[in-house]
Amino acid sequence: MSVTTPKGFVASGVTAGLKPSGKPDVAVVVNQGPSSASAAVFTTNRVFAAPVKWSREAVADGQLQAVVLNSGGANACTGADGYADSAATASRVAQRLGLIIDNVAVCSTGLIGIRLPMDKLLPGVDAACAELSADGGSAAATAIMTTDTVSKQAHVTVDGWSIGGMAKGAGMLAPGLATMLVVLTTDAEVASHDLDVALREASRVSFDRADSDGCMSTNDTVVLMASGASGVMPDAATFQEALTGICVDLAAQLIADAEGAAHDIAVEVVGAASEADAVTVGREIARSNLFKCAVFGNDPNWGRVLSAIGVTDAEFRPDEIDVSFNGVMVCRGGQIGEDRTLVDLSPRKVRVTVDLHAGAHSATILTNDLTYDYVKENAEYST
Amino acid sequence: MSVTTPKGFVASGVTAGLKPSGKPDVAVVVNQGPSSASAAVFTTNRVFAAPVKWSREAVADGQLQAVVLNSGGANACTGADGYADSAATASRVAQRLGLIIDNVAVCSTGLIGIRLPMDKLLPGVDAACAELSADGGSAAATAIMTTDTVSKQAHVTVDGWSIGGMAKGAGMLAPGLATMLVVLTTDAEVASHDLDVALREASRVSFDRADSDGCMSTNDTVVLMASGASGVMPDAATFQEALTGICVDLAAQLIADAEGAAHDIAVEVVGAASEADAVTVGREIARSNLFKCAVFGNDPNWGRVLSAIGVTDAEFRPDEIDVSFNGVMVCRGGQIGEDRTLVDLSPRKVRVTVDLHAGAHSATILTNDLTYDYVKENAEYST
Repeated sequence: MSVTTPKGFVASGVTAGLKPSGKPDVAVVVNQGPSSASAAVFTTNRVFAAPVKWSREAVADGQLQAVVLNSGGANACTGADGYADSAATASRVAQRLGLIIDNVAVCSTGLIGIRLPMDKLLPGVDAACAELSADGGSAAATAIMTTDTVSKQAHVTVDGWSIGGMAKGAGMLAPGLATMLVVLTTDAEVASHDLDVALREASRVSFDRADSDGCMSTNDTVVLMASGASGVMPDAATFQEALTGICVDLAAQLIADAEGAAHDIAVEVVGAASEADAVTVGREIARSNLFKCAVFGNDPNWGRVLSAIGVTDAEFRPDEIDVSFNGVMVCRGGQIGEDRTLVDLSPRKVRVTVDLHAGAHSATILTNDLTYDYVKENAEYST
Repeated sequence: MSVTTPKGFVASGVTAGLKPSGKPDVAVVVNQGPSSASAAVFTTNRVFAAPVKWSREAVADGQLQAVVLNSGGANACTGADGYADSAATASRVAQRLGLIIDNVAVCSTGLIGIRLPMDKLLPGVDAACAELSADGGSAAATAIMTTDTVSKQAHVTVDGWSIGGMAKGAGMLAPGLATMLVVLTTDAEVASHDLDVALREASRVSFDRADSDGCMSTNDTVVLMASGASGVMPDAATFQEALTGICVDLAAQLIADAEGAAHDIAVEVVGAASEADAVTVGREIARSNLFKCAVFGNDPNWGRVLSAIGVTDAEFRPDEIDVSFNGVMVCRGGQIGEDRTLVDLSPRKVRVTVDLHAGAHSATILTNDLTYDYVKENAEYST
């Protein structure tokens, strides 16, 4: 169901032949209204893909009627020709469905630096438009997978309205949006501006805090479309809570299926002087290859946590820091704490809690360990 | 020879039993003068080890007569007791050799968060002091190895004076000094202040640009001692050139022996608007796990180079960037360039050249690829 759980949405996923594997690679999600209010957030990478440029312009007026997505090629670093390909893709959807071209967002994912085979993509778009249905959410979620091993979907129903979502992730997961494409749908009646505010806040505490490998993608896009088909106008706080919940759920799914990962790590920073400090410290730990290798080796190596914290400009005193692995405080006051052999890191889920004792703010960054399989997948990805 | 190449220095390396392997683990380098002018640079990590705190204070007056170094334990995150251990180590050297305790620097390397076994270390210090000789440079260089597979030494002779050096590295190599201990000696007559200026400049363009795994250590120390025993006072430019040459040489040796590495990568950034921009861009590329995995897989994946550049605030236009792998310009003007199959990444040495076309400045960052063996070594290191 996912993106087609809310009323007013149809979706589909088909195989256009972009992937050597022959797996589904083109998806379309259509908002049938009555409203076409929408919002989107994009990668902050200054090297961004053609579809990001296209979709930024498309959503600038707060209106979208459809999103077309492809895996099997990122259409990044492809210049003016690549941009024309994105435009042609949107145009084809608009033609087939009788939509305004500027109301069609485009998302692409896959290898950087190769042109999309338009002779395969456009017939795929035709097929996807022909197969749109209110049951098509799962097919769409499957078609946007790259190295994902499972499709990511979520939905929530609240007092007569709902939110649905699908996501793809796997690699290049980093702050400022991971390598992810996310489509969120709702049948609530929410104006474009309010969608934008809600989406930015929800992304800030979910996707922006999923940092699998520290690498920021050229293609990250999160689109939120509201059909208004439920006829319900939720209050802002209720909508925010539901939307944030869906985004946190999808972000956790992305981390749980990150390339080659053997552990899903929640780095929880508490006692920070500010939320920004908590995020900074959490990210620096999440980006430490030595820390990530240690977790892979089931080793509660708190020295690597402290050495990562030490390069930040966050407010702390080294001799006041506590570090716990799965509840065992192996470092207390910046020194040796509980016996490290008490820590069991064999479960997939690991929680590292850092108390800076510098204030009352906190944040949690989700990341993964660094494994043989991560290296293998990313050494062999394009060859 | 290395640190004992210049006149006025003796050194030794012995086995105190700090390492389970039974390999040498304590080294002493002594400056017999007539001058004891010295300088040092240290990790900028805010979580720094006890010996760093001790040595910063020891060198504050620009005078050192000896350095005592141990592998087999970093004495980091060990609190006041750890600091007392560093002081006791310096005191033992001073007693044995009739030196002033404040003229003895202390360096430690190994696991963070364990106390040093002083009952083994102090007898080791005694033995090292008893074995000091003008031929002891190589023994000292061997005793400071941790996961290094070869000892690192260098020396240069210039018009009657010389500089020698030894280094240990292997893991946690990152900007702001890698996990490294380096001792440099010279018999040139140079005042403390001039040594300090020269050492900072030499480190800035050598050790500070060696970034193997993006992780900054708690113990990095580079000590430079000048005996003045040659009686020669070189001019500042000549001394700087020789010192920088030794530091660049040792930094390259560190990268060439980094943990688990299969490629030594020089990321050369040219056409930058400033040297700072060139360093920023080079470091961001050197810290991209995806890029590093690609090189391990012999894959000239320039898209990962561009996506790393894109997260920096350096001056550039995405559509003006050229990227070459070993001389083949696979990306020209931010788009597909030469055929990537022309690139041969099978040799250990790889040069990635990025031209930002934004100015006339340049910098080269040395790094390594990300390999199975890196993960293995760092997953198993403390267990």
